[in-house]
Amino acid sequence: MEMFGDNSCPSPCNTLGFLQKNNSLEEKGRLAGQKNLLSCDNSDRDARFRRTETDFSNLFARDLLPAKNGEEPTIQFLLEVVDILTNYVKKTFDRSTKVLDFHHPHQLLEGMEGFNLELSDQPESLEQILVDCRDTLKYGVRTGHPRFFNQLSSGLDIIGLAGEWLTSTANTNMFTYEIAPVFVLMEQLTLKKMREMIGWPSGEGDGLFSPGGAISNMYSVMIARYKYFPEVKTKGMSAAPRLVLFTSEHKSCSNQLSLFESRTCHYSIKKAGAALGFGTENVILLSTDERGRVIPADLEAKIIDAKQKGYVPLFVNATAGSTVYGAFDPINEIADICEKYNLWLHVDGAWGGGLLMSRKHRHKLSGIERANSVTWNPHKMMGVPLQCSAILVREKGILAGCNSMCAGYLFQPDKQYDVTYDTGDKAIQCGRHVDIFKFWLMWKAKGTIGFEQHIDKCLDLSQYLYNKIKNREGYEMVFDGVPQHTNVCFWYIPPSLRGMPHGDERREKLHRVAPKIKAMMMESGTTMVGYQPQGNKVNFFRMVVSNPAATQSDIDFLIDEIERLGHDL
Amino acid sequence: MEMFGDNSCPSPCNTLGFLQKNNSLEEKGRLAGQKNLLSCDNSDRDARFRRTETDFSNLFARDLLPAKNGEEPTIQFLLEVVDILTNYVKKTFDRSTKVLDFHHPHQLLEGMEGFNLELSDQPESLEQILVDCRDTLKYGVRTGHPRFFNQLSSGLDIIGLAGEWLTSTANTNMFTYEIAPVFVLMEQLTLKKMREMIGWPSGEGDGLFSPGGAISNMYSVMIARYKYFPEVKTKGMSAAPRLVLFTSEHKSCSNQLSLFESRTCHYSIKKAGAALGFGTENVILLSTDERGRVIPADLEAKIIDAKQKGYVPLFVNATAGSTVYGAFDPINEIADICEKYNLWLHVDGAWGGGLLMSRKHRHKLSGIERANSVTWNPHKMMGVPLQCSAILVREKGILAGCNSMCAGYLFQPDKQYDVTYDTGDKAIQCGRHVDIFKFWLMWKAKGTIGFEQHIDKCLDLSQYLYNKIKNREGYEMVFDGVPQHTNVCFWYIPPSLRGMPHGDERREKLHRVAPKIKAMMMESGTTMVGYQPQGNKVNFFRMVVSNPAATQSDIDFLIDEIERLGHDL
Repeated sequence: MEMFGDNSCPSPCNTLGFLQKNNSLEEKGRLAGQKNLLSCDNSDRDARFRRTETDFSNLFARDLLPAKNGEEPTIQFLLEVVDILTNYVKKTFDRSTKVLDFHHPHQLLEGMEGFNLELSDQPESLEQILVDCRDTLKYGVRTGHPRFFNQLSSGLDIIGLAGEWLTSTANTNMFTYEIAPVFVLMEQLTLKKMREMIGWPSGEGDGLFSPGGAISNMYSVMIARYKYFPEVKTKGMSAAPRLVLFTSEHKSCSNQLSLFESRTCHYSIKKAGAALGFGTENVILLSTDERGRVIPADLEAKIIDAKQKGYVPLFVNATAGSTVYGAFDPINEIADICEKYNLWLHVDGAWGGGLLMSRKHRHKLSGIERANSVTWNPHKMMGVPLQCSAILVREKGILAGCNSMCAGYLFQPDKQYDVTYDTGDKAIQCGRHVDIFKFWLMWKAKGTIGFEQHIDKCLDLSQYLYNKIKNREGYEMVFDGVPQHTNVCFWYIPPSLRGMPHGDERREKLHRVAPKIKAMMMESGTTMVGYQPQGNKVNFFRMVVSNPAATQSDIDFLIDEIERLGHDL
Repeated sequence: MEMFGDNSCPSPCNTLGFLQKNNSLEEKGRLAGQKNLLSCDNSDRDARFRRTETDFSNLFARDLLPAKNGEEPTIQFLLEVVDILTNYVKKTFDRSTKVLDFHHPHQLLEGMEGFNLELSDQPESLEQILVDCRDTLKYGVRTGHPRFFNQLSSGLDIIGLAGEWLTSTANTNMFTYEIAPVFVLMEQLTLKKMREMIGWPSGEGDGLFSPGGAISNMYSVMIARYKYFPEVKTKGMSAAPRLVLFTSEHKSCSNQLSLFESRTCHYSIKKAGAALGFGTENVILLSTDERGRVIPADLEAKIIDAKQKGYVPLFVNATAGSTVYGAFDPINEIADICEKYNLWLHVDGAWGGGLLMSRKHRHKLSGIERANSVTWNPHKMMGVPLQCSAILVREKGILAGCNSMCAGYLFQPDKQYDVTYDTGDKAIQCGRHVDIFKFWLMWKAKGTIGFEQHIDKCLDLSQYLYNKIKNREGYEMVFDGVPQHTNVCFWYIPPSLRGMPHGDERREKLHRVAPKIKAMMMESGTTMVGYQPQGNKVNFFRMVVSNPAATQSDIDFLIDEIERLGHDL
């Protein structure tokens, strides 16, 4: 089975690495002398991997560890997978590679060249499993490609990727310190650092990483309700008066993902309102200015109106970086109103929170330190692999107060360690995925300044795009002025529409332009960018830049591609 | 930087792999002729990886892709990480390695031998990042170790691990077909297969993978509410009468994770009741028999009682595999009552659902086909890496009806593909992590029979443990008879307590035995098993077997270890 045995080439593949020479490993060597029989040390350098030729056609999952003699096939199988993955990584950054190879659902379901999605009773060989891995990547979308602009989350950060590989190898969860000691502490330190960047005194407060911005926002509504009406936890919503929530009529970023969600009206605060028993009718939408920013006077008017109707205003969501326009609501003015009327202020910084890392751009979130809670998704603007979303809370203890099901549990702890590090009681989840490690590792590897540079670069790139098209023939901007975030919203007007008088016919035709261009983009696989309508504005392109691989040449390419595909529409 | 260039050893490290010879790749070769300029093919075999000696002390994250000339350092960095991970994997299955190397929070926070958790403004070298990766694993817990029995989720499945590595490399999410075409279809096919195993006609229905059993159970309550009181979605809970939910007084498995959660009374249905606005007082706990199974007559009595008080019974959760006892509620009898009173029947099979894969054990879930919804966590009994939890619903369309924020969106789809494949509208989340691929790949690799063998083996092992200790000196079983699941609950009675008369003093002493033994286990790092009290029963050990690496010798080791550590207490 092994075409090349141990002796065929001992040096390059089986040699000791540089790391062995460094201090940390000398330290480990020193410590080895003190080790007892059982060891947790995994720095055994003799075990440095060596690839061999392996015939996977006669191997099955049952031959891998923990099977007897499973070690060698396990390592060889994993290395073969890594070969597939590293090739994919290389191609992802290669502009001569397509962003995607589009197929319709029925085509993939019918089976593409032997790629059969159906599951069966009998096992497949590892050879087939490896082919399935290749095919899965082949028919997927390269979200890290320099010309993938379709989502707020894009790019493929190598440190973050390494962090995810390690996280899945460690395969634990965040419930207790007992089973995730390092990750629990990393989460605690990282959340504190994020609270410092928000500007809460000494970084005090609380928080959790949650499965996405929509859930983080849901936490904020739950905590607000618990703060003002704690009896709802035990007695239900009937113990409270009719409570109302306020949020922008523009989508906040915890409900992005493709522009599709805008079309589906996927508002996370509305979803929270529905789920938590408030009812969507009690989620009041706030008017925005032409740039998509909430108008504070409208908020105050609607608060007064609600109170006059006998309802109780509870919660205001200020969006820091809306999905479509990238708008930042005026937090300070909203905070003034929240203080005046004693309302909970949440800032949804899922998309815009990353700008806190930039000395140049953080002023756009000015006032965020006055918020009671903040959603901030490092998996968006900061390029952390999916998923990584934080809910941060200024008041300590309220997260556990809201979600704990047994307040007395601290009374009689019989564990040998300090159980205040256990996080399970704060979460609505039980098994909570380890989302922290990749983020912590990226922060270590880049430093705060690395994130800052990334963010500044993305904003520069979007300004480059804005400058390029604002006066270009065939383009109309959806709103005037330099965008606040990296969102650049524009219509491409094909030559056939350029002379047409404004009116219903032109609107209807223009509405179909972006979808047609997007469909052709996907068929040709050259680039991807989102589009959507907004209010009474027909479909327009929404360009966003969060991908660290994108350069000015990719922006140029996108514009060329839109013109190439749209010219004859 | 490269100590060995291209020519030093061309064959073993840079040679073509076996896979190149198979049909699928011949096919790919044939297709290459038809390729256009842009390619999505990632089977470029020339690119097979080659390790070189790399000095990471002068390399930083900024030197990796997408940096210019970043390809080589990127691949070498990832391979160095893989070296760390494959060594960890090998050690995980090695019984001479510790399960954990326990440190208190303050010890880790103070910094262990240069392992500094603090984040800073400046970047660290990749050498330091690699050291951090090693240290993270060193101070963590090996949840795949053959002697790790602490959680319902244990083991490290190699195929699942490979699936996770691929998933994080693909770095997309489940929101739309557009950005996750393959994963969306895999989810659809796998959920159908699961519904077939539940026994719903033709596998019809709906479902989603969600971030854990607690969220899956929360979905079930939301859907039930929407089914009977759809106006709650828009008007809130005040549009409904006082609704009550019923669940076992024993923890159901969506709230496990360590036995800690039992102590914290972390009931997922109660958490859902609190979050969704029902109130925990309206979650009625059902009495159980001595084996922890809900007594159907108690359910009926409590339904009648609630109705007499003017409340409206809505929802019953039947637990299929409780956290502590592994009890299966009698689903058929509960279903009869639900039909009689027109209530929603949910089965929480988070822990027990896996038994559906076993022809020998699936009868324990008899009646599950009568449920309206089912929670089933493949990350527990089926050994899928964390996280992987499914909410399955018998009625099609109701998931989207409940969670969609804009019913009209299907009216004017302008995408080029069939948007019914988009899943975003069904979820309360927006960015939904890809939890399906690892599970799909494991199913492909093992076949249904592979899961069946795993489950049968785990149940055999727990029966081995039961037989070993049921009449052994120094042991008392918490309940009589062969356990229904792999849960074996027992007290170890140290010699000093064996002659002591039953009474408060003995109870108090016995209550402290399991925590003391557990603390010593963790300090010595040899094995991990959970303990907890239940009702009026003092702390006892709860052994569970879901780890595919565990054998009879590991069970023997656990018992020896308990006796060694507990003998002199």
